[in-house]
Amino acid sequence: MGYPPFAVTVDLVVLTIRAGHLSVLLIERAEDPYAGQWALPGGFVHVDEDVRDAAYRELREETGVITGIHLEQLATYGAPDRDPRMRTVSVAWLALAPDLHEPVAGSDAAGAAWVPVVDAVRHRLAFDHAEILRDAIARARAKLEYTSLATAFCPPEFTVAQLRAVYEAVWGQQLDARNFHRKVTGAAGFLEPTGRLTNVDGGRPAQLFRPGPALLLDPPFTR
Amino acid sequence: MGYPPFAVTVDLVVLTIRAGHLSVLLIERAEDPYAGQWALPGGFVHVDEDVRDAAYRELREETGVITGIHLEQLATYGAPDRDPRMRTVSVAWLALAPDLHEPVAGSDAAGAAWVPVVDAVRHRLAFDHAEILRDAIARARAKLEYTSLATAFCPPEFTVAQLRAVYEAVWGQQLDARNFHRKVTGAAGFLEPTGRLTNVDGGRPAQLFRPGPALLLDPPFTR
Repeated sequence: MGYPPFAVTVDLVVLTIRAGHLSVLLIERAEDPYAGQWALPGGFVHVDEDVRDAAYRELREETGVITGIHLEQLATYGAPDRDPRMRTVSVAWLALAPDLHEPVAGSDAAGAAWVPVVDAVRHRLAFDHAEILRDAIARARAKLEYTSLATAFCPPEFTVAQLRAVYEAVWGQQLDARNFHRKVTGAAGFLEPTGRLTNVDGGRPAQLFRPGPALLLDPPFTR
Repeated sequence: MGYPPFAVTVDLVVLTIRAGHLSVLLIERAEDPYAGQWALPGGFVHVDEDVRDAAYRELREETGVITGIHLEQLATYGAPDRDPRMRTVSVAWLALAPDLHEPVAGSDAAGAAWVPVVDAVRHRLAFDHAEILRDAIARARAKLEYTSLATAFCPPEFTVAQLRAVYEAVWGQQLDARNFHRKVTGAAGFLEPTGRLTNVDGGRPAQLFRPGPALLLDPPFTR
């Protein structure tokens, strides 16, 4: 065709909070290259498929759902030697999900699991997936400071304590409950009270909130 | 090779401030498709070339320089019909430059020019370049709020008035000089005084600053 041919893939960094830990969806590769190693889920973009649609297709194949999941492009990785089979460029996507059911292993995977990111970054992941994972975690941590994206990890209605658990898991540090409550309820457009109470946290009844209209936090949070 | 072959390109949105206007580098296409139309500069990634290196190569070919220019990946565009020749995925990059010399028309361009973005967004640009340009302008506008990136448009040493002219050009609105001065000199790590004065602005001598170590502004600015 007169121009160097590339294969184009999408890779997904799907993050969620499980048992208080920021966790990432990993698959065990069934086939070479890197058979038996852990990797990010992903696959080749089809010839007639929009790259964004390929990301949604993989997300559905791996998690069984796409609604209620925040999906954004992370970055594209294009070192010449990143795939031993051929010249491959991967468009990586960051997905933030509320706690989902157990993952489904796709056709090219021997298994799939939610792995705490503190463990995942110590694994020898296939391809350049360790770099992609590091970039994704950094993006998620930064975005929680200046955007309302933390609510993407929550169910549709949630308490301030649940939201604080998200921040604590993503940032990897404890936060002062009283300060946190003051900040999140003071940030314009971040949270909308539903007017209902819950005792899901086990203690005294707590207010339930839903995400407000603000995408950017004013003022932003700091760690 | 068993997988659908794609061509991979890089496209550059090079922004600078010229005569008080946020301006973008556009080229006039010499060849089909879209011969005679304005487009973002860019080109095919070579078979053995890192995608990032391809972006730097195009930047040098189009502007003659790469030092002192901020370059970051913007996003990747991969709709199936975005290039009439073949299936092409483009990795778009955002470059922020201080006011440069006249652009150099690359080998595939009939001409090159700095065009105020208010005019550029009204042009019928080739491919999906109008969408890429809109995304780049939105990214630049947002980043000036919470990062110190505005200094990428400045010479190595600059006055607060010069920095304010950057904000006014990118945001497209006048800013109160006294408020602006208070904010930028109050943001931790944003600016470092050089200890020298200049009368480049034509008025009374003004302090010269250089960029400080902070990448994120605390507190961020608001428009």
